Amino acid sequence: MPSISEKGTHMPASPIRKLVPYAEDAKKRGTHVIHLNIGQPDIKTPKLALDAVRNHNIEVLAYSMTEGSETYRKKLADYYAKNDINVSSSDIIVTTGGSEALSFVMGTIMDADDEIIIPEPFYANYNGFATALGVRVVPIVSTIENNFALPPIADFEKLISPKTKAILICNPGNPTGYLYSKEEIKQLAELVKKHDIFLVADEVYREFAYDGRKHYSILQEPGLEQHAIIVDSVSKRYSMCGARIGCLVSKNKNVVGTALKFAQARLSPPTFAQIASEAALETPQEYFDDVIEEYVERRNILVSELQKLEGVKVAVPQGAFYCIVELPVSNSDDFAQWLLEKFEMDGKTVMVAPAAGFYATEGLGKNQIRIAYVLEREQLVTAVKLLGIALKTYKA
Amino acid sequence: MPSISEKGTHMPASPIRKLVPYAEDAKKRGTHVIHLNIGQPDIKTPKLALDAVRNHNIEVLAYSMTEGSETYRKKLADYYAKNDINVSSSDIIVTTGGSEALSFVMGTIMDADDEIIIPEPFYANYNGFATALGVRVVPIVSTIENNFALPPIADFEKLISPKTKAILICNPGNPTGYLYSKEEIKQLAELVKKHDIFLVADEVYREFAYDGRKHYSILQEPGLEQHAIIVDSVSKRYSMCGARIGCLVSKNKNVVGTALKFAQARLSPPTFAQIASEAALETPQEYFDDVIEEYVERRNILVSELQKLEGVKVAVPQGAFYCIVELPVSNSDDFAQWLLEKFEMDGKTVMVAPAAGFYATEGLGKNQIRIAYVLEREQLVTAVKLLGIALKTYKA
Ligand SMILES: Cc1ncc(COP(=O)(O)O)c(C=O)c1O
Ligand SMILES: Cc1ncc(COP(=O)(O)O)c(C=O)c1O
Repeated sequence: MPSISEKGTHMPASPIRKLVPYAEDAKKRGTHVIHLNIGQPDIKTPKLALDAVRNHNIEVLAYSMTEGSETYRKKLADYYAKNDINVSSSDIIVTTGGSEALSFVMGTIMDADDEIIIPEPFYANYNGFATALGVRVVPIVSTIENNFALPPIADFEKLISPKTKAILICNPGNPTGYLYSKEEIKQLAELVKKHDIFLVADEVYREFAYDGRKHYSILQEPGLEQHAIIVDSVSKRYSMCGARIGCLVSKNKNVVGTALKFAQARLSPPTFAQIASEAALETPQEYFDDVIEEYVERRNILVSELQKLEGVKVAVPQGAFYCIVELPVSNSDDFAQWLLEKFEMDGKTVMVAPAAGFYATEGLGKNQIRIAYVLEREQLVTAVKLLGIALKTYKA
Repeated sequence: MPSISEKGTHMPASPIRKLVPYAEDAKKRGTHVIHLNIGQPDIKTPKLALDAVRNHNIEVLAYSMTEGSETYRKKLADYYAKNDINVSSSDIIVTTGGSEALSFVMGTIMDADDEIIIPEPFYANYNGFATALGVRVVPIVSTIENNFALPPIADFEKLISPKTKAILICNPGNPTGYLYSKEEIKQLAELVKKHDIFLVADEVYREFAYDGRKHYSILQEPGLEQHAIIVDSVSKRYSMCGARIGCLVSKNKNVVGTALKFAQARLSPPTFAQIASEAALETPQEYFDDVIEEYVERRNILVSELQKLEGVKVAVPQGAFYCIVELPVSNSDDFAQWLLEKFEMDGKTVMVAPAAGFYATEGLGKNQIRIAYVLEREQLVTAVKLLGIALKTYKA
């Protein structure tokens, strides 16, 4: 039988995937599983976006432009302008999710064995895209003690080698919930200019900044135009993950021109989804205000409930809708599996994402889990209560 | 300014892209450009597919399953069964176009510097996916004299090295229009089994087989189950290129399991497009009969008109909707540009795809163009007439 590729063997499976069969078994036993493990919001998609697709009048569902439809990119540029990000439609390539933008960016700026420095814990699929392209992720640790703030610049500097092509941040962060300050972005900007490398920012959670904090985009930083590349997405912004629309934004013409060649090979982003995304740009501010209020309340309840548990430490998220929680267990992979396999209380259990999958450094995150607070408050309270009881039982 | 990747520099631009500005200029001058250069059919998308999307009742546009929705994959398996291809839903991964399937397949079976043998001329984007992944395309020449039939197996054998992981065919072929016979497939099957490599078949034009010929899929070939990987797509089948839905099909569990990890990294294929694709499976046979009749008539007219031109040679297509045409010119890139820049007749000109972009061997295809017969018959007749006049003027 012909063998598959080495990179295929090393492609990381999703950190949750191996738990899925256990969750299915639990459901088969009649146990209700509360999912704290996924980033799929329960928030309704703006009706105007769904209606735009309902009202389409397409007769021939043709390829769109490779870089995304003209009208959508123009309106996207307006969206960025409203967010104090000054770009034109030609600085934007519409992609099939932020996922594809990440893949294009890595291909555009990195060859095999090149390195990209990423603060860990980080969005696990960065690893997948890097493995697929044969490039290396160089992690730099951020800690729960510091609420996952930016690691010291001197620590970044130690990791920069001739192979380093970029630093990648996620702002606000999945899975950390940390929102980088303007000061932190400025420090990174100095660093990448000094070493003439790129700064890539995954800003798919831009709108989700809490407690009066304001998101500061790398494209707001003066003088960073040639170094800055944004990865963006409609998935979380409008709760339309299934659309599969994102984009890549850069003022660097070489970057956009090269990424466009990667885009050409795959022809075009999905047409219906672009219709929905274009309409979604008309979503009133009220929608976001409501959503953010909801997430803040969920976060507050989640954090305060978690803080009641003995031996549990939680980083207070300032954005996005995830948080990393440290548990009094030595192996959260095992604990997460045990929750599904052995535990139940009043017919219920909890599914969490073990955090080790969000670290590149072997051994880190083993006593941590990631919780996504995309469920209603009541469910969050129940889930944390179950977690508390489970922790006691598990240790005994 | 930080530099882009070497692979980015080498990513091939689309063979047509550099002509686009000339076409735009021609249109600005008021010249009507007849597009023989693109594979975007003018055929209407089945109404039931478009209606399914119009009637969606989605409230939260969520990620679908990574491997594609359960119901769609089940119905896809039925579709294959009807085509004498015996697979189950677990042998299928739904992808974002055949494009993504191609990329997943290459990643799944090839590491950097590994080789894949492809008869040329071939679909130009195979080069793009290979370059993006750092793998090598090894071309094997098929000739217009042979109507682009399979090159002799002995020639394949000469090219097989320890780095060879697969042979990739496109059946029926873009840009050749050639439909491989059962005999040819059997020869390839023997070869890949002997050398224990994969046989990948891009069968996105499966339905488009003419003159009573029947498409023979590599998955119909007994004993090839562990070696065969199909790349497929709804783009041309239902004239729904803008949906961006394709799939990868293999009975080899290792292949599907590994490809699934690549799929997980990008989360899911587009939801609306899956709704359309699932509905499209109900398209009555009549639709295909009509479409095929239309393409056959277009082909007949195109070929007979072309054959009237002096010094013009045309491979008679047996499938798909492209053909390669040899012209009495030494540089079809230059001729194609000249058509847009300098030529017009009754306010019209023609845009063609220079064929060199479909060859990997430097220097081949320089006197050839690819024509896509996705236009109405009258337009095809006009286009060929213009081509004939243009050839005379160009040579003078
Ligand atoms: C940080 C981050 N980046 C990118 C993505 C990719 O999302 P999509 O491809 O749906 O845009 C996600 C999805 O969860 C994410 O959390
Ligand atoms: C031979 C061949 N394979 C694959 C594709 C990719 O098509 P899609 O990604 O739209 O499925 C095309 C598109 O023209 C093609 O001609």
